[in-house]
Amino acid sequence: MDSAQFREAAHSAIDEIIQYYDTIADRPVLPSISPGYLKPLIPNGPPQDGEDWPTIQKDIDSIIKPGLTHWQSPKFMAFFPCNSSYPGMLGELYSGAFNAAAFNWICSPATTELETVVMDWIAKLLGLPECYLSDGEGGGIIQGTASEVVLTAVVAARERLIRRILEREGFGDEESEEKIDRAAELRGKMVALGGEHAHSSTQKAAIIAGTRFRTVPAPRSTGFSVTGSALRQKIEECKAKGLLPFYFTVTIGSTATCAVDNLEELAAVARENPDIWFHVDAAYAGSALICPENQGLCPPLSDFDSFNFNLHKWLLVNFDCSAFFIKKRKDLIDTYSITPTYLRNQFTESGLVTDYRDWQIPLGRRFRSLKVWFVLRTYGVNGLRAFIRNHVKLGEYFNGLLDQRKDIFTVVTPARFALTTFHINPQYLVSPTIGSSPANKADPSHEAYLNDFTNSADAQYREDANQITKQVYEKVNEKGEFFLTGTVVCGVYIIRVVSATLSAEEKWLKRCFDVLVQTVEEVKKSRAT
Amino acid sequence: MDSAQFREAAHSAIDEIIQYYDTIADRPVLPSISPGYLKPLIPNGPPQDGEDWPTIQKDIDSIIKPGLTHWQSPKFMAFFPCNSSYPGMLGELYSGAFNAAAFNWICSPATTELETVVMDWIAKLLGLPECYLSDGEGGGIIQGTASEVVLTAVVAARERLIRRILEREGFGDEESEEKIDRAAELRGKMVALGGEHAHSSTQKAAIIAGTRFRTVPAPRSTGFSVTGSALRQKIEECKAKGLLPFYFTVTIGSTATCAVDNLEELAAVARENPDIWFHVDAAYAGSALICPENQGLCPPLSDFDSFNFNLHKWLLVNFDCSAFFIKKRKDLIDTYSITPTYLRNQFTESGLVTDYRDWQIPLGRRFRSLKVWFVLRTYGVNGLRAFIRNHVKLGEYFNGLLDQRKDIFTVVTPARFALTTFHINPQYLVSPTIGSSPANKADPSHEAYLNDFTNSADAQYREDANQITKQVYEKVNEKGEFFLTGTVVCGVYIIRVVSATLSAEEKWLKRCFDVLVQTVEEVKKSRAT
Repeated sequence: MDSAQFREAAHSAIDEIIQYYDTIADRPVLPSISPGYLKPLIPNGPPQDGEDWPTIQKDIDSIIKPGLTHWQSPKFMAFFPCNSSYPGMLGELYSGAFNAAAFNWICSPATTELETVVMDWIAKLLGLPECYLSDGEGGGIIQGTASEVVLTAVVAARERLIRRILEREGFGDEESEEKIDRAAELRGKMVALGGEHAHSSTQKAAIIAGTRFRTVPAPRSTGFSVTGSALRQKIEECKAKGLLPFYFTVTIGSTATCAVDNLEELAAVARENPDIWFHVDAAYAGSALICPENQGLCPPLSDFDSFNFNLHKWLLVNFDCSAFFIKKRKDLIDTYSITPTYLRNQFTESGLVTDYRDWQIPLGRRFRSLKVWFVLRTYGVNGLRAFIRNHVKLGEYFNGLLDQRKDIFTVVTPARFALTTFHINPQYLVSPTIGSSPANKADPSHEAYLNDFTNSADAQYREDANQITKQVYEKVNEKGEFFLTGTVVCGVYIIRVVSATLSAEEKWLKRCFDVLVQTVEEVKKSRAT
Repeated sequence: MDSAQFREAAHSAIDEIIQYYDTIADRPVLPSISPGYLKPLIPNGPPQDGEDWPTIQKDIDSIIKPGLTHWQSPKFMAFFPCNSSYPGMLGELYSGAFNAAAFNWICSPATTELETVVMDWIAKLLGLPECYLSDGEGGGIIQGTASEVVLTAVVAARERLIRRILEREGFGDEESEEKIDRAAELRGKMVALGGEHAHSSTQKAAIIAGTRFRTVPAPRSTGFSVTGSALRQKIEECKAKGLLPFYFTVTIGSTATCAVDNLEELAAVARENPDIWFHVDAAYAGSALICPENQGLCPPLSDFDSFNFNLHKWLLVNFDCSAFFIKKRKDLIDTYSITPTYLRNQFTESGLVTDYRDWQIPLGRRFRSLKVWFVLRTYGVNGLRAFIRNHVKLGEYFNGLLDQRKDIFTVVTPARFALTTFHINPQYLVSPTIGSSPANKADPSHEAYLNDFTNSADAQYREDANQITKQVYEKVNEKGEFFLTGTVVCGVYIIRVVSATLSAEEKWLKRCFDVLVQTVEEVKKSRAT
């Protein structure tokens, strides 16, 4: 493909992408193909001789698009959003053009330096404490996903505590057999902690790091948040068993319900336990911190060791782009720096430059700061705040719709960061099978429902609610028009609705609500017959 | 940025990228800026209101380009190449447009299914043994970098052996305290192995996995390759100390010299040690396996557990794109699968689909197979083979130039996979200070030099050679026209030259050779005064 062919191909690709975005709302969000659909549509191997772009591009339409789940669709209300944007795509294009495995400064200084600058921009935009800025001992780095960030923090935490204990025990700098054996023994006692509703990445990181893992309860009574006393109790339990707690994930915006742990209380626990690394995972909700009305959450972050959120979720930077801020970059470098001779150079040795490879697991790095820079500048602070606030308002709108049909829906967690969770009231469908429970109440309040649901001795009620909610959820997704997520929190099956794509609009939430009501009626009818 | 603005911006970006590629040979490969150049050129934070694209694009030229190291330049001969291509960029563009965190099948079936198909294409193209194809128990996955792949393999290896030992010791499926304690004790004894010249990613992976690490010697006498007996001896040494060797990195194309371990012999060791996971790291050289003349290396791979190479190095797919092939995918899934309720769905539970999140460390995934598909189809098998063969020939050409000046240069490892390594003969510059060594030989053969260098008792000769070679290397890079890498293998300081970018041409290798000769003369002159 020469320059002229590339220009023509790229123009045609741009047209196709624009057409895709302009019509995205017209398609069902979920594809209707079956597992294994693609293989029969494609030859067994690459062609012997090259093909031209028009031949290739045709197949995108006929083979790829039918198998896409449309995350940019306004009907995508599952998981959390994964927003793209035109300036983000331009960033990806330039990143592909200026292609480099930029593992250290000299491998492409602009890649390192722009990243440092835009990470500082973001730290300030979010109102993070100053300790996370690059001009002190901390700084920011772009990694791929929150899972990678959490693993990076867990391993650095494990090794930081090992180093500290060995030093306290009088081991010197050299790597004696005895010291290695002692480190191995200590690692075997180490336990990572995460809240009951923390993302599964903490557990996965503990598996990879080869440490134990324990969850800290976050019951419905605390709004699914980890409290200081719950964490303190778990730490004591671990210590009583001779284990070494070394890491805890603080959650801002849990996956299931967008719950926020009790930051003030946890900050106090952090101050009491300087050997434990506190990492804040705000993967989705962190983007909302760009709005001053949410920045009340930020001051306690200065007592924690690190923080991350994903710009690829709610801040219009296409996947992948997870911003990881660290209070003391030395805590990463001490674990991740290995310098074979082929990576040595005068700039690294001068200590004047940042080699981000020593802050992360992989060696090479993409030029991801370009897309961040393009998005921040194209939207501006006001544009991005308006984007977030619009979704928050849409979430409240949807919550309001549910409240209008309290006979059918019980809101489990009200709209927060654009996410509302609810379950179906079983008595709306199957009242005869229910005994003494809420079904008998004439106009049950939200609280009464909740209390009944969690405390009621009527196991049948709970089972019915879970079963029916799951059935409605699966039926909605099967229809393919909307994509929602169902999950279980503290024994309650809930449906999650979060509408936060670039194309989100009130009318789609209304339509989704209507589909939910209609599906409940269908399930009701099918159960009656 | 609306559709019309995007079209205009994208066209302008495409023009700039084409202009960049068309003129890339005109720039020095290394930037001339100093550390910290970028920060003063950029405001302290994002603008309050959005900026238009022409304003942003202007800054790419004035702020970013002066700080780039041009990896696509024909003057880039450092490390290994990191090639991009126009069809690869188009793949990145579509991937940004079809943006999704495609962690499981239903999150975008085309993303999973195209990846499975193109990985099979690649396995066949490379002549990998059939066990790495997806229709049996194995298959391929695209990960970011070789470092991530190696870590993925190391951790899976560690946990596979733990599971096996616990089973042999009679532990059941449930997670008792006793079982967890025993697993921790075993982990503390585990040791990962890598050849002396294996990439540092193996050592880094061992740190992250929390295991011990030992290197297996690969001396000059074996061509810097690990032999079966060297590995066997290291395994026995570890076992004699009560340690558990669980993993070994086999190298095809080492970073320093493109050495290939003795695959036949190591395959025999693998058969003798089924508890040790053998992973083949062919990060750079693996691409050469698309040429039948190199596929003699492939049959022993069937005795190993996994294999990876980076399409982003030498196969025209822009960074990042590391192809990871596994013989038994169950070995990954058993370690990496965690399924919280919010990730459950009928397709995953049916067992009919692949959820690649269970084959890797992160959860989300980019649609990287698109760029692979575009590149393979645009070039075709013949086009890609011609691309590789051209570089191999250029390597031989450069080796030939060095051979014409045996008075100045000693080739340490002859051209292999386009890489040649050499050192400067100190006697060309500083003959008076050298004693009885090769300087005295009238027409010393290549072998005589090598033998003298490694065996000579003349430490002064060795020190002079290393010091002078390093000095020449640093001076060449300082000039900025070419970018080379210097490193140390078995005590010898070498300069590496590998010219394998899309724009590589004989004339640039000739020019690089001339610059080297000229720099040697300059150093000679400066030493004489």
